[in-house]
Amino acid sequence: MKDEKGILFVLSGPSGVGKGTVRKRLFEKATDLKYSISMTTRNRRPSEKDGVDYFYKSTEEFEALIAQNELLEYAKYVNNYYGTPRKYVEETLAKGSDVFLEIEVQGAMQVKQNFPEGVFIFLFPPSLEELKNRIVNRGTESEELVLNRLKEASKEIEMMEAYDYVVVNDQVDHAVEKIEAIILSEHLRRERIAKQYKKILEAD
Amino acid sequence: MKDEKGILFVLSGPSGVGKGTVRKRLFEKATDLKYSISMTTRNRRPSEKDGVDYFYKSTEEFEALIAQNELLEYAKYVNNYYGTPRKYVEETLAKGSDVFLEIEVQGAMQVKQNFPEGVFIFLFPPSLEELKNRIVNRGTESEELVLNRLKEASKEIEMMEAYDYVVVNDQVDHAVEKIEAIILSEHLRRERIAKQYKKILEAD
Repeated sequence: MKDEKGILFVLSGPSGVGKGTVRKRLFEKATDLKYSISMTTRNRRPSEKDGVDYFYKSTEEFEALIAQNELLEYAKYVNNYYGTPRKYVEETLAKGSDVFLEIEVQGAMQVKQNFPEGVFIFLFPPSLEELKNRIVNRGTESEELVLNRLKEASKEIEMMEAYDYVVVNDQVDHAVEKIEAIILSEHLRRERIAKQYKKILEAD
Repeated sequence: MKDEKGILFVLSGPSGVGKGTVRKRLFEKATDLKYSISMTTRNRRPSEKDGVDYFYKSTEEFEALIAQNELLEYAKYVNNYYGTPRKYVEETLAKGSDVFLEIEVQGAMQVKQNFPEGVFIFLFPPSLEELKNRIVNRGTESEELVLNRLKEASKEIEMMEAYDYVVVNDQVDHAVEKIEAIILSEHLRRERIAKQYKKILEAD
């Protein structure tokens, strides 16, 4: 069964829903998932390694890769590009490993366009009230900014329609268990594995 | 989230693959699954209860239900009808419980026609050799009968194409874990639950 290709899983959801926490807990448990390494034009910090923390590129290199459709998604923050290189993802999948991407809703929509065979998981707040609390409790933001982020979050929730699965983040452990079930069951989908099974029978 | 409808899961696969054993082990663990109660025209035995072991009907009643498309599948063995009543399945799903059906491949294909929104799981032998061993080790059958059953099993495996998931029955516990993951993840599919999530938000 090991000539099966890996699957790209994309975890996304509104700001403040807890994507990062869920992803970290999942990676503590699921040792055979590969985290997608991003590409950036920002300077490498002394503690960082190329190909481990990021792939570091010049702005010219990055823009050439954008032109060649070599990024599954990208965005610009504070004059630096950040993106997900298609090549790294495809090579990792070809080796039979799953790739896991935790990403903002806008980026996830780009990935969906460029890589529709991915499995898209939407992390959902237990309630809008709870999402508001989480955004407010970050504490560093003015009331106006909080209101803007909430409006943004409501819009992001509308994008749920484009996803394959919805997981409510009521408790981190529950959300992680559900994502693990999704990962396992996606590997059991007939259209992914029928070829491998036919090989088993022909080998008899 | 409890106004969510239940899901019909159908476990099938070739004769000798171990469907019954897997189903029993699953039911020891998964207490909130409802086993589908069959309908039959055979006589009720003293130890049996109507609506528990079977729904008991006369041949005339059963044939009338067939004509009204009230059976998701049915077959005749030794002059008696056996089948899966649509009404019981639909009422159980409407109450929010999942229904689990363990059934021969021919019957599963009838269910698929009558209830395409079900989730169809194909239990797969670890190898044809192993399937042969299991059929031979039943011990009660002549060599000719064994060969016939093996040919039948090969044909049944062709029908895998109509299923949503394939689970290899290499070890009963592994197969059961995989089926549990399928059950959990199917409840997380966006198209099933988006309405419930919209309600959560409107309630805020």
